[in-house]
Amino acid sequence: MSRIPALVEAARGGDPRALARLITLVENDDEGLPELAALLAPHTGTAQVIGLTGSPGVGKSTTTNELVRALRARGHRVGVLAVDPSSPFTGGAILGDRVRMQDHATDTGVYIRSMSARGHLGGLAAATPQAVRVLEGAGCDLVLVETVGVGQAEVEVASLADTTLVLLAPGMGDAIQAVKAGILEIADVFVVNKADRDGADATYRDIQGMIALGERGPGQWRPPVLRAVAAKGEGIDDILAAIDKHRSWLESGGELRRRREARAAAEVEAIALAALRERIGSLRSGTALPALACAVADGSLDPYAAAGQLLASLQLPASN
Amino acid sequence: MSRIPALVEAARGGDPRALARLITLVENDDEGLPELAALLAPHTGTAQVIGLTGSPGVGKSTTTNELVRALRARGHRVGVLAVDPSSPFTGGAILGDRVRMQDHATDTGVYIRSMSARGHLGGLAAATPQAVRVLEGAGCDLVLVETVGVGQAEVEVASLADTTLVLLAPGMGDAIQAVKAGILEIADVFVVNKADRDGADATYRDIQGMIALGERGPGQWRPPVLRAVAAKGEGIDDILAAIDKHRSWLESGGELRRRREARAAAEVEAIALAALRERIGSLRSGTALPALACAVADGSLDPYAAAGQLLASLQLPASN
Repeated sequence: MSRIPALVEAARGGDPRALARLITLVENDDEGLPELAALLAPHTGTAQVIGLTGSPGVGKSTTTNELVRALRARGHRVGVLAVDPSSPFTGGAILGDRVRMQDHATDTGVYIRSMSARGHLGGLAAATPQAVRVLEGAGCDLVLVETVGVGQAEVEVASLADTTLVLLAPGMGDAIQAVKAGILEIADVFVVNKADRDGADATYRDIQGMIALGERGPGQWRPPVLRAVAAKGEGIDDILAAIDKHRSWLESGGELRRRREARAAAEVEAIALAALRERIGSLRSGTALPALACAVADGSLDPYAAAGQLLASLQLPASN
Repeated sequence: MSRIPALVEAARGGDPRALARLITLVENDDEGLPELAALLAPHTGTAQVIGLTGSPGVGKSTTTNELVRALRARGHRVGVLAVDPSSPFTGGAILGDRVRMQDHATDTGVYIRSMSARGHLGGLAAATPQAVRVLEGAGCDLVLVETVGVGQAEVEVASLADTTLVLLAPGMGDAIQAVKAGILEIADVFVVNKADRDGADATYRDIQGMIALGERGPGQWRPPVLRAVAAKGEGIDDILAAIDKHRSWLESGGELRRRREARAAAEVEAIALAALRERIGSLRSGTALPALACAVADGSLDPYAAAGQLLASLQLPASN
């Protein structure tokens, strides 16, 4: 008998260990995920999701920590998901950072969790929304998703948030990196952290200049650039105010609904593609793909014809 | 009527413009690619494929240029494919480098071409082997595939070569980068280029040290580390000798065949997956996915159930 209904029940009752086990199931792409998703669906769809990203060293953990403190003071139940899109090697670093979060260790209104998605065939695009749903199902009305680094994977993760914060720090060349990685397109709020350091003004001007270059129609959101010194708790209220303002903008124009539907579509696609990929992958251990590969290597069959035969063995209708 | 048979005929007759048009078809994932692949298959499967990769600035173009000169002197017909796995922004840089290849502009036994795969749904994994086949079908018995940068995409491209050369240069921290990117696993020959510069010995020792750390069974290939100053033509003969030696090793143990079958399998999979992805993508413009996404955003349907319905609309048999 599946243990998942009992785990969901316990997580909804506030049991942090049940919650942890559920997120581990998500990480590992457990075969029970469809059941879990079905159980969670009625309890999801309303939590506010805040993304937070930036290069290593800009102060993401400190900022998250201070934001959690301020959100708790407002009465929110807060979930934090620290997502590691990169190699196994950096897993330790993230877990290390988590130690600084122990400020909240005795607060049952906060749940903090690192997550990788190495075991998830659908990758972060499929795994992260599931984990957010677990936190939401367990009663968090606000979920902070923190990602490490500035790259394609971070953009992917950030794109599932209602509001995405991008942290910068002086003298790190972040502005250029942000443009390269497409961060500029997904940022709703920029924060120049460590604003008491040399070079903060230059970073501020750089990013303002890049925002000014972007074309925006009337009624479109223009990302504000804030200054903060998270380690001293400075600027946190301004960040929350910017999040609130962005939230109002999202709600007023129907953008919140559009974003959530786009996210849901991307998630459904990722799950469907993963299922298809898994089926194709399962053919590797069969005889079809090796035989086709042999014929292609010989030149006796071309790769498109081989791919057609492979798809036929999946009982798919003819392509195009 | 399809123009592809005539283009293939012309390319096989040595017409460089026909060859260029065929590679453009590959770049753009033209709907005629299955036909092209079928026409080329009988003429492919024997060319030697050499991969060449390394960070920007290590001297890839210069080295390629000198290798082409030496290979021509041996009587090979040589194709060069400079693949750009990254953003559109670097396209110009590659084309600029190509100017230096004009040494060979009047030599009809050499065909040099930059390629991106931005338009190809199957990405580089599907596009690059097709382009190699075009060059092979046009009579090149040796194809050099040069990639810019050291990253996951480069590893992917390099993995389609029989022999992969990794270029390093003094003082660029390449050794660490190489390990991070998984280059160490795919390199068959290391070349420390610009070996007359300060720091070349340190780079040489670094990479030797990393190779020594790798575990190798008896009969396994241990990548040699060579020194070269490509700009002066120094070390090119050593590189060719190492390629020959690696080629003998590949042939003696059946590894060449194994590599080519593994490559063909990956290629067939990439094409099959791209076809499936395209079909799922085509549902975006239909009514199924938006309706499912709406239900998921509402919480009235969970994403796994939605993915199942999406797959059902593709007429796929039930998963698992």
